[in-house]
Amino acid sequence: MINVSNRMSKTLGLPPGTVVHVGDQNPQKPKITIIDFDEREYGEHVLDEIEDSIAFLYKKTSTWINIDGIHDTSIIERAGITFGLHPLVLEDIGNTTQRPKFEDYEDYLFIVVKMLYCSKEDEDLWSEQVSFILMKNCLITFQETEGDVFDLIRERLRTGKGRVRKLGTDYLAYSLMDAITDNYFVILEKLGDQVEELEEAMLGSLKQNAAAEIHDLKRDIVYLRRTVWPLRELISAMMRSESKLISKPTKIYLRDLYDHTVQVIDNIEAERDIICGMLDIYLSTLSHRMNEIVKVLTIISTIFIPLTFIAGVYGMNFENMPELKWKYGYFACLGLMGVLALGMLYLFKRRKWF
Amino acid sequence: MINVSNRMSKTLGLPPGTVVHVGDQNPQKPKITIIDFDEREYGEHVLDEIEDSIAFLYKKTSTWINIDGIHDTSIIERAGITFGLHPLVLEDIGNTTQRPKFEDYEDYLFIVVKMLYCSKEDEDLWSEQVSFILMKNCLITFQETEGDVFDLIRERLRTGKGRVRKLGTDYLAYSLMDAITDNYFVILEKLGDQVEELEEAMLGSLKQNAAAEIHDLKRDIVYLRRTVWPLRELISAMMRSESKLISKPTKIYLRDLYDHTVQVIDNIEAERDIICGMLDIYLSTLSHRMNEIVKVLTIISTIFIPLTFIAGVYGMNFENMPELKWKYGYFACLGLMGVLALGMLYLFKRRKWF
Amino acid sequence: MINVSNRMSKTLGLPPGTVVHVGDQNPQKPKITIIDFDEREYGEHVLDEIEDSIAFLYKKTSTWINIDGIHDTSIIERAGITFGLHPLVLEDIGNTTQRPKFEDYEDYLFIVVKMLYCSKEDEDLWSEQVSFILMKNCLITFQETEGDVFDLIRERLRTGKGRVRKLGTDYLAYSLMDAITDNYFVILEKLGDQVEELEEAMLGSLKQNAAAEIHDLKRDIVYLRRTVWPLRELISAMMRSESKLISKPTKIYLRDLYDHTVQVIDNIEAERDIICGMLDIYLSTLSHRMNEIVKVLTIISTIFIPLTFIAGVYGMNFENMPELKWKYGYFACLGLMGVLALGMLYLFKRRKWF
Amino acid sequence: MINVSNRMSKTLGLPPGTVVHVGDQNPQKPKITIIDFDEREYGEHVLDEIEDSIAFLYKKTSTWINIDGIHDTSIIERAGITFGLHPLVLEDIGNTTQRPKFEDYEDYLFIVVKMLYCSKEDEDLWSEQVSFILMKNCLITFQETEGDVFDLIRERLRTGKGRVRKLGTDYLAYSLMDAITDNYFVILEKLGDQVEELEEAMLGSLKQNAAAEIHDLKRDIVYLRRTVWPLRELISAMMRSESKLISKPTKIYLRDLYDHTVQVIDNIEAERDIICGMLDIYLSTLSHRMNEIVKVLTIISTIFIPLTFIAGVYGMNFENMPELKWKYGYFACLGLMGVLALGMLYLFKRRKWF
Amino acid sequence: MINVSNRMSKTLGLPPGTVVHVGDQNPQKPKITIIDFDEREYGEHVLDEIEDSIAFLYKKTSTWINIDGIHDTSIIERAGITFGLHPLVLEDIGNTTQRPKFEDYEDYLFIVVKMLYCSKEDEDLWSEQVSFILMKNCLITFQETEGDVFDLIRERLRTGKGRVRKLGTDYLAYSLMDAITDNYFVILEKLGDQVEELEEAMLGSLKQNAAAEIHDLKRDIVYLRRTVWPLRELISAMMRSESKLISKPTKIYLRDLYDHTVQVIDNIEAERDIICGMLDIYLSTLSHRMNEIVKVLTIISTIFIPLTFIAGVYGMNFENMPELKWKYGYFACLGLMGVLALGMLYLFKRRKWF
Repeated sequence: MINVSNRMSKTLGLPPGTVVHVGDQNPQKPKITIIDFDEREYGEHVLDEIEDSIAFLYKKTSTWINIDGIHDTSIIERAGITFGLHPLVLEDIGNTTQRPKFEDYEDYLFIVVKMLYCSKEDEDLWSEQVSFILMKNCLITFQETEGDVFDLIRERLRTGKGRVRKLGTDYLAYSLMDAITDNYFVILEKLGDQVEELEEAMLGSLKQNAAAEIHDLKRDIVYLRRTVWPLRELISAMMRSESKLISKPTKIYLRDLYDHTVQVIDNIEAERDIICGMLDIYLSTLSHRMNEIVKVLTIISTIFIPLTFIAGVYGMNFENMPELKWKYGYFACLGLMGVLALGMLYLFKRRKWF
Repeated sequence: MINVSNRMSKTLGLPPGTVVHVGDQNPQKPKITIIDFDEREYGEHVLDEIEDSIAFLYKKTSTWINIDGIHDTSIIERAGITFGLHPLVLEDIGNTTQRPKFEDYEDYLFIVVKMLYCSKEDEDLWSEQVSFILMKNCLITFQETEGDVFDLIRERLRTGKGRVRKLGTDYLAYSLMDAITDNYFVILEKLGDQVEELEEAMLGSLKQNAAAEIHDLKRDIVYLRRTVWPLRELISAMMRSESKLISKPTKIYLRDLYDHTVQVIDNIEAERDIICGMLDIYLSTLSHRMNEIVKVLTIISTIFIPLTFIAGVYGMNFENMPELKWKYGYFACLGLMGVLALGMLYLFKRRKWF
Repeated sequence: MINVSNRMSKTLGLPPGTVVHVGDQNPQKPKITIIDFDEREYGEHVLDEIEDSIAFLYKKTSTWINIDGIHDTSIIERAGITFGLHPLVLEDIGNTTQRPKFEDYEDYLFIVVKMLYCSKEDEDLWSEQVSFILMKNCLITFQETEGDVFDLIRERLRTGKGRVRKLGTDYLAYSLMDAITDNYFVILEKLGDQVEELEEAMLGSLKQNAAAEIHDLKRDIVYLRRTVWPLRELISAMMRSESKLISKPTKIYLRDLYDHTVQVIDNIEAERDIICGMLDIYLSTLSHRMNEIVKVLTIISTIFIPLTFIAGVYGMNFENMPELKWKYGYFACLGLMGVLALGMLYLFKRRKWF
Repeated sequence: MINVSNRMSKTLGLPPGTVVHVGDQNPQKPKITIIDFDEREYGEHVLDEIEDSIAFLYKKTSTWINIDGIHDTSIIERAGITFGLHPLVLEDIGNTTQRPKFEDYEDYLFIVVKMLYCSKEDEDLWSEQVSFILMKNCLITFQETEGDVFDLIRERLRTGKGRVRKLGTDYLAYSLMDAITDNYFVILEKLGDQVEELEEAMLGSLKQNAAAEIHDLKRDIVYLRRTVWPLRELISAMMRSESKLISKPTKIYLRDLYDHTVQVIDNIEAERDIICGMLDIYLSTLSHRMNEIVKVLTIISTIFIPLTFIAGVYGMNFENMPELKWKYGYFACLGLMGVLALGMLYLFKRRKWF
Repeated sequence: MINVSNRMSKTLGLPPGTVVHVGDQNPQKPKITIIDFDEREYGEHVLDEIEDSIAFLYKKTSTWINIDGIHDTSIIERAGITFGLHPLVLEDIGNTTQRPKFEDYEDYLFIVVKMLYCSKEDEDLWSEQVSFILMKNCLITFQETEGDVFDLIRERLRTGKGRVRKLGTDYLAYSLMDAITDNYFVILEKLGDQVEELEEAMLGSLKQNAAAEIHDLKRDIVYLRRTVWPLRELISAMMRSESKLISKPTKIYLRDLYDHTVQVIDNIEAERDIICGMLDIYLSTLSHRMNEIVKVLTIISTIFIPLTFIAGVYGMNFENMPELKWKYGYFACLGLMGVLALGMLYLFKRRKWF
């Protein structure tokens, strides 16, 4: 189950534009990594202070500034001053309960996306907010913690494979968002596997908590849905954006990314349909089981209750009960009981009760 | 449970534009407070008569006139005359069953919003209607009773913190609406807590009134939904408004507010999905419980009914029953019964009934 | 329950534009009342023939011609000739199964609305179709029967209170429609009361017909919905209409009326949600009740069936049953039974069955 | 139940524009009837060959060519050649599983509508496809079989009543479509009657097949819905069409027809809501009935099982059972039983079980 | 059940535009077939290397290049170089989990469609992705495996029947898509048959797995829906496309194809409604069955439990039980039992229990 808290009460009453970190705490110091590249050159740097990154802004090369650890809000504020960002942008970077969004501030584009990934050691899902500031020749990304799904893109940058070194920071931003979206498919597959497991388990034996498990799956799919639907709008807005910061060739790739998100949404909706249907199946299985149990009770009761009654009759202590004195009375009585029982069984058979 | 009455029959048949107070009665006299401010100056005043506020209109400073207590309709009518408001505006201020709305009357903007808050002493939710009249250099707010969620904004005005002293009355109106929206998150968190409590309670033991509690939660979420959906339209209309009364910098803040309301709506819809799903779980838990109970009944009955029948047979008083005379007949009979019972248990075990 | 018949088969095969009365029969003669007014003058007249009203058309004053009783189709036809109305308009006036609609015929506007009201003597709901022909300086209204919700407006016209004498026939038409919409709130409150009553009754004892009552409430809400949704479109079309027959000041009032219909729709949708949820609660209450009943049966059966079996064993007539001869055999047997019963009760207690 | 087969596999793999008859077979020869009319003249003709109709095309009068029996595809092909129709039009005429549609081929308009009617002898519903080719001064209609809902329009043409002789072929096409739509109301009324019958039957006694009947009604309503929704689009497209073949006066009538289809759709949706709700009622009635049955079982069992146990105790054969020797032991025992039974009954009464 | 895997994790982390085959493996070598035709000429060729097809591009005739077997990604890459295709197009061709789509790359149009067919030997459904590259005078199609639904079109090309030789490659592309859509009807008919079979089976006897079967049908319909809905958008985009590659006459045929997809969607939605309703019927049948079973149990128990009690009473061993000594006590007792049993039966009859 994806564990997400949407506690926004922390920001209650603060003036808009105040940078507050809403999210899990993190004892580590923020880490600033810079990848500086163009078609021929490539450099990796780790900075101590965000202000040092200003030097890279004036180079002609493309620069990717990645900041891990937004729980230290001072780094957001200092980045805001360094790069001239709007206070609301800083507030949104700090608030990890943000909805995915795209905003055009003329000098830069602001994009917020949710990164979902599955740590390799345990099977837990992690949701992390990634904020992009796309400027001319510079892309700044803010992440909650170290560790992300971008390693393959870093590899490609390093080795110069693919188009990523050639096509500038807007293509880089696209690549990162594409990597995030690709991971949604992985999460969806995991969910699909869980659904199939539960389906098989449900048809086998009756688990008490099937309803609760279905409920949990539903919650996960609801969370995924809330994450991906705004992503579609976001990418659509980027495609239609008239900002010069997104070049025409990148827009073709954005169209492809848009198709991917639509496909994710399609899969989510289909999975959701199936999960909703599962509860109906569970309920009908319960009903069916109930029918079977009550049938057993009814067959046994209906056969033996009349027999027991007959035995009771001949157990009565009346002085004048002629049958009791008959020589084969007992056997006749047993015979009668046998005929009755067989008759009942025949009736049940004809009604297809077993 | 949010307690709201939508009794509009009081206004039945009155000419449109008649100011009638629809809402809870309040014995107190209306209270008029004025905060007069600009970047350098700041003053707080309590007025006896609304007409005295006219002096502030002609000053260059920004003025916030707050009126608590619209149950005294004469104050609405007198405010209408003092500030030149349309009769329909006055009617809407008095009618607290109003839907959130935004109307542009050229000289002023009229905004109606629902303020939800939770009193500190008891845990009850309160819904109060706040009407805004946004004029040039002047903001008039009407509230049902004293007590609101604006104290932090008053504090910020007093101390000159934040942008609120600089950016004029439209930004002030935005700040107040932002404070109201922030409180929706608090209410939602409370609701979310209730949902989680109920979920846990439901899986533990079977409360008779779980269905009724779910129904109450649903009602609350339906009420919240009805309050927030029109708010989104309202803020969207303000953003698109061409009125000169809303400055461009404030519009950027309105976009942020719009995002917040969308987030509230997202949370409401997700909470609603979960609440609707809870009833299904409750029903399936009931069914499961039923299965368990009937299973116990069936196992006990199915084992003992045949045994009782055998006991009944040998309790019959026929004269000629050879088994009764056998030396170990009784023990053979007990043995038969034991074998039968064990056989039954084995069958139930194989069917995984326990 | 609102009783409506939508029998349209009567008009089957007739040429379009044929005036047929579809609706309840009414033995009375149609009644034509004329109110002629401007800011200073006021006159009330009852006419025998519709043709006599032509005189009022040429006066500068505003004229409201109200016709009660459209079951006499000849009056519709004669009104059609007198005022030059399109055959389809006449057909629609006569057919009381009409959907609310607004049509612009350049020289006049044609509006059809449903008036719902609740007669004072009995509690029955009545639905009546009101057709408006709005011409320059003249408003013609057609009603099914005498008796309507317009008395307060007549009173205001007579006494010259409010804006209705000043603002002409378009404002009068708005006032009448506003009166009709106000009554929807009354109907909704009645429905809400019924819903609350049923909710309380349902939680108390189990009424056989709760499902049927919920079904009836649902039918009513479905009918209301069908009546009000087109009304919203209708008023929206009037607001956007470019017809000269609706003046600008009236349009502001129409915007207010539009808000009212949206509020009615909001309430209807909320009521509908609640009614739909009630059936689920009813079903879960039934299930819960069932559980309780079966639990009682199971506890009693499970305790006494084994005891009865023991009694049966010692009621057998085997000659050699050593226990029967023990001095305290009977009391030992009773003790065993007691222990067994208490053990069962303890088990049920631990399973929280009671 | 409306019986419709949507077998389209017959056309599988054929080149587009191939005329294939998809629908029920019909042994009769196609019948070609021509009604030739203008305001003064009127003539009826039965033709043997479709090619003979060409003469009427060059007359100034309006001509209605009606062809019954499209199972003979050669007549469609020959009509195609005679009137110069597009191959796809011919294919659509032949394929009776067509969705209602409107297509503008400049020289002519192509309209496909479903005619539903109820034969007088038996109560069966019939669905028949009617295709219209509207040309200047000429309307060609294709029907599956003889017999339709147009007799009253023929009558009006013959007698010159109404506007139909004056307003040309577009008005004639409208009249025919209006007649078809009027019949939908009849079908809906029939459905409504069936729904009410079933509702009453359901509350009375429990029919085994109520669920199946509800399912059948649902299927019918689903079929009606699929027939009428595209009709609305179709008429809306005709109204907005800029084709010269539809005159302005006819468009006013089309607006009326559009209103009728909206009303049909409203009724269908309302009927559908009610039918869907019926199953819930049926299920809750089943549950209630179950409760009643189980209550009877529980009351009887709970009263008699303890009594039978007491009887069993005193039926034991222990030698030392002091009570058996008491003089009034038997009557004390009976008294005890009576008290127990009454106590049980009192408890059930207090729980309101009966 | 349609068996589809949407495993996209294979492409995870690869640079966009990398051609990876996502889908079932296939040991065969890709097969390249070329059909070269115009109105007079016709030629069929099988090529070894895709590069050889370049010769056909420079001829004036229309060329259809069909490639079976995209599991060998090198052929996609080489086709990309040969025909100058965008890397994203190549990626989409290789990824068989693609959503149906239409993209305009100016020099060529890219279309992805899902082909569903039913192999003749077994009854299994197959889903295969078909990609179209429509260039001037040349159509390239990529299929997953050999075997498709295009044989009849090849036949028509060969024999020169229909319009397909005359109207160029855009008409050919339309024809292929039309053939694919025609097959959807076949699949739908199969589904409809399964639904009807299940409906009949369900009303007959109670199958344990009815719920699971309904679930499977629902999954299939969900899959079909996801396949056809984007197809509608796709064809609509083709119709509205301003590309010169689609001629005006072909657009008329596309309109027809659009109508077909709408009809498929209509049928799917109707089928879906029916399938969803089936579960309700199944549940209500289960409930009804349960009622019947419990009724049998109740009738038998309620009749015999009191009788057994009476027998128990007279089986007690009290010394002083006067009735036991009566001469006809036994017969009186039997009579009493008979009367009691008949009374019970009468009561059940009156309650219409049988």
